[in-house]
Amino acid sequence: MQNTNYADDSLALHTDLYQINMVEAYWADGMHERKAVFELFFRKLPFGNGYAIFAGLERVLEYLKNFKFSETDLTYLKEIGYKDDFLAYLETIKFTGDVYSVVEGEIVFQNEPLIRIESTLAEAQLIETALLNIVNYQTLIATKASRIKQIVKEDRVMEFGTRRAQEMDAAIWGSRAAFIGGLEATSNVRAGKLFGIPVAGTHAHSMVQAYKDEYEAFHAYAKRHKNCVFLVDTYDTLKSGLPIAIQVAKELGDKINFQGIRLDSGDIAFLSKEARKMLDGAGFTDVEIVVSNDLDEYTILNLKAQGAQVDSWGIGTKLITAYDQPALGAVYKLVAIENEQDEMEDTIKISGNAEKVTTPGLKKVYRIIDRENGKSEGDYITMVDEDPEKEERLKMFHPVHTFVSKFVTNFDAVNIHAQVVKNGEITYVYPSIQEVQDYAKRSLELLWDEYKRSLNPEEYPVDLSQKCWDNKMRNIQEVRDSIQSFSKR
Amino acid sequence: MQNTNYADDSLALHTDLYQINMVEAYWADGMHERKAVFELFFRKLPFGNGYAIFAGLERVLEYLKNFKFSETDLTYLKEIGYKDDFLAYLETIKFTGDVYSVVEGEIVFQNEPLIRIESTLAEAQLIETALLNIVNYQTLIATKASRIKQIVKEDRVMEFGTRRAQEMDAAIWGSRAAFIGGLEATSNVRAGKLFGIPVAGTHAHSMVQAYKDEYEAFHAYAKRHKNCVFLVDTYDTLKSGLPIAIQVAKELGDKINFQGIRLDSGDIAFLSKEARKMLDGAGFTDVEIVVSNDLDEYTILNLKAQGAQVDSWGIGTKLITAYDQPALGAVYKLVAIENEQDEMEDTIKISGNAEKVTTPGLKKVYRIIDRENGKSEGDYITMVDEDPEKEERLKMFHPVHTFVSKFVTNFDAVNIHAQVVKNGEITYVYPSIQEVQDYAKRSLELLWDEYKRSLNPEEYPVDLSQKCWDNKMRNIQEVRDSIQSFSKR
Repeated sequence: MQNTNYADDSLALHTDLYQINMVEAYWADGMHERKAVFELFFRKLPFGNGYAIFAGLERVLEYLKNFKFSETDLTYLKEIGYKDDFLAYLETIKFTGDVYSVVEGEIVFQNEPLIRIESTLAEAQLIETALLNIVNYQTLIATKASRIKQIVKEDRVMEFGTRRAQEMDAAIWGSRAAFIGGLEATSNVRAGKLFGIPVAGTHAHSMVQAYKDEYEAFHAYAKRHKNCVFLVDTYDTLKSGLPIAIQVAKELGDKINFQGIRLDSGDIAFLSKEARKMLDGAGFTDVEIVVSNDLDEYTILNLKAQGAQVDSWGIGTKLITAYDQPALGAVYKLVAIENEQDEMEDTIKISGNAEKVTTPGLKKVYRIIDRENGKSEGDYITMVDEDPEKEERLKMFHPVHTFVSKFVTNFDAVNIHAQVVKNGEITYVYPSIQEVQDYAKRSLELLWDEYKRSLNPEEYPVDLSQKCWDNKMRNIQEVRDSIQSFSKR
Repeated sequence: MQNTNYADDSLALHTDLYQINMVEAYWADGMHERKAVFELFFRKLPFGNGYAIFAGLERVLEYLKNFKFSETDLTYLKEIGYKDDFLAYLETIKFTGDVYSVVEGEIVFQNEPLIRIESTLAEAQLIETALLNIVNYQTLIATKASRIKQIVKEDRVMEFGTRRAQEMDAAIWGSRAAFIGGLEATSNVRAGKLFGIPVAGTHAHSMVQAYKDEYEAFHAYAKRHKNCVFLVDTYDTLKSGLPIAIQVAKELGDKINFQGIRLDSGDIAFLSKEARKMLDGAGFTDVEIVVSNDLDEYTILNLKAQGAQVDSWGIGTKLITAYDQPALGAVYKLVAIENEQDEMEDTIKISGNAEKVTTPGLKKVYRIIDRENGKSEGDYITMVDEDPEKEERLKMFHPVHTFVSKFVTNFDAVNIHAQVVKNGEITYVYPSIQEVQDYAKRSLELLWDEYKRSLNPEEYPVDLSQKCWDNKMRNIQEVRDSIQSFSKR
């Protein structure tokens, strides 16, 4: 920490060392300015969910805009052994390429490019690690939040996880992603300020402890806060906290708005039902019951099945860390590169695992929407020069089990990518965070309910065009041939 | 993101809204400057491990030092409804208290205070969320890294997780915590610069793809990098990558230091053994085998059991996210507060769950070390005025199962806390990160091996003194009496 206060701490070094090593090799070989195309995608949807909600684009774009090695960055690189000639080159680098991306709040699926980077090989290589770091986490949390929202439906859900988040950036960017996924508010005040997300929260057990007494504590709170949600489980919910909350509310009458009570421990199903009865019995039928205590979509589903009387859910640890699957495995792969004849050539990464073989070439992703019911038939990945809108009848087939296929007619084919950066300049106009949330809600309406189940959803089709498939097969064969020819040397 | 570029973005707002609401109530009631004591601790060790490694202190201290609401913070708070009189007070707040803490790298256990804050009620309340956010994550990762290091023993382990970390702070602070836990290096260059951690990494698959050919790629890499670790699994490890790496190394001879090959996919046990044979057969007996691919302590243990020939391990996702338990549940509880007579009074938080009842009052933690063998007999929590060093014969008993007890003689009692902040000024001299790692290694030598097993370790004793126990029982009884007297109203 003695070293963390660099005034010019930049994010250009927020990368893996090997990226810089590779760029040095490219530069030494005169390869660094060849045009290269990388795609960012994930291979598997998180949480066994039927879709993901893309998030992270604004952070990515600001990162690209500000990409520059600072003076102390270069000094450090020199200390660890890089030579002056190469450092002089690094000093000149900024991001000058084009970026095509889905927008935040878009529903996205396995094996389709989310972001396409077209830039110099050096620039595109250096930014890989940070892009994955940003998109993996934010997309994961937006998706988790959306899963929770699918279960609670119209109930209010608040993000309460800062204390358990994986350090500070996760707390604030996770709050933002959770809002995109459909949550109503966050407890993190800084996230509220930075992103314009509504903030929520009332008081903690420590306040009751400080006054030693719930009666005194609730009165003290009400002195400055007209809207009161009293935390009633510090000592004994049904014998102490709740009756005292009711007593204080009656004493204060119109001076406060007795908005709710919060339960943070004990058996939520039982306590919420008892609390509802006591509140209703005292005439407080509008007073809401807020709960929090290690909740996620699974516990909420169970509590609802038991008739828990809950109006508002505070979700902490399980959301902000994506507890049941704390990482999304998005990757960033080279799909095309300029050759010595200044022509673009497709590239492929082969693997023993068929699902890890990349799909080469510049591609587009079209969402195929049935004109009659407005629902999506699946996503259709084409080479960049194809236009499925021109087809009368589209053949979609499964990219692994190719015999699974269907024909689609009377459809709209919507290109899900937009150009967001041109020659290094951001061309995308940032929507407000509320607009992003609204967009996510509307996007989900394209999906049949079968894709939106928390458990065992139907698999949404993400298919390759025939041309895209043929190109992939050709590339695989070329690599195989070259490996065999080496073995024969 | 359009709003994230506040020049004066401060961490004072990096808190839960309810903290500010409570402080407003305290302030309105004239309670805000009462002296309060909070303790930060966790109730359960993570990963079923037998110990945890404390980390996060330097970040905590820098946060406290810089704690101040900025101009735009106050503007935002006004926008969301806080009144000018209270904001004028918030503007004056800085941290003026005392902090006692264990140092980074210390081995720590369940239910013992890690940090004790003695400050005004308002200050101590406002900092809760950020302290937990920092300590929970960093301690979790230092502990996970230490578990991995217990398994790999003398092998080299590198942190490779940035792309899967939960946003940027997790990547860098997680790297630092992993180093404290015993790892040798990180791939994150920014973490290297900020914290002085060694950095590691060579090249990725994309470099091989860019050259289309491993032969060209390895040669290109070697032009600028004398120390070469070639990634050999882009196309086919045994048929292509490895034989080409050997061929290139033979061609270049003394011009490079052929340091290693890296495997990032496929069956590591099989491939590493085959690779070892091929390398040895070609005379490269010193060339190391580096592996990476979704590893953690469990997979490493299995690979070692199968005789995998690995010299160096790159650990990504599973470490940086603490995949199998991505949150530590540390809490921050009020244990004493000044009353209207300016005397300190103990406070307690009762819960239906016996393990969640807090231990009231100002306390110390002594590590009881057997003078004969230098091993620790357990930790012993006392009231602040006790001195176990003065005892000939110490009775230690289990804080839940009180009939489990033992007597200890011929021991040293070492207070594990140091004062690190006095009247708001940092009095602690930061050690280097290497010193912190060394300290953690030495601390672990105090523990018998039975506490260091990855699976089902012995439970390390963390016991209360008789006085501490009696005080807790008295406080519980007082709360019970007051609840009953309310019920009788």
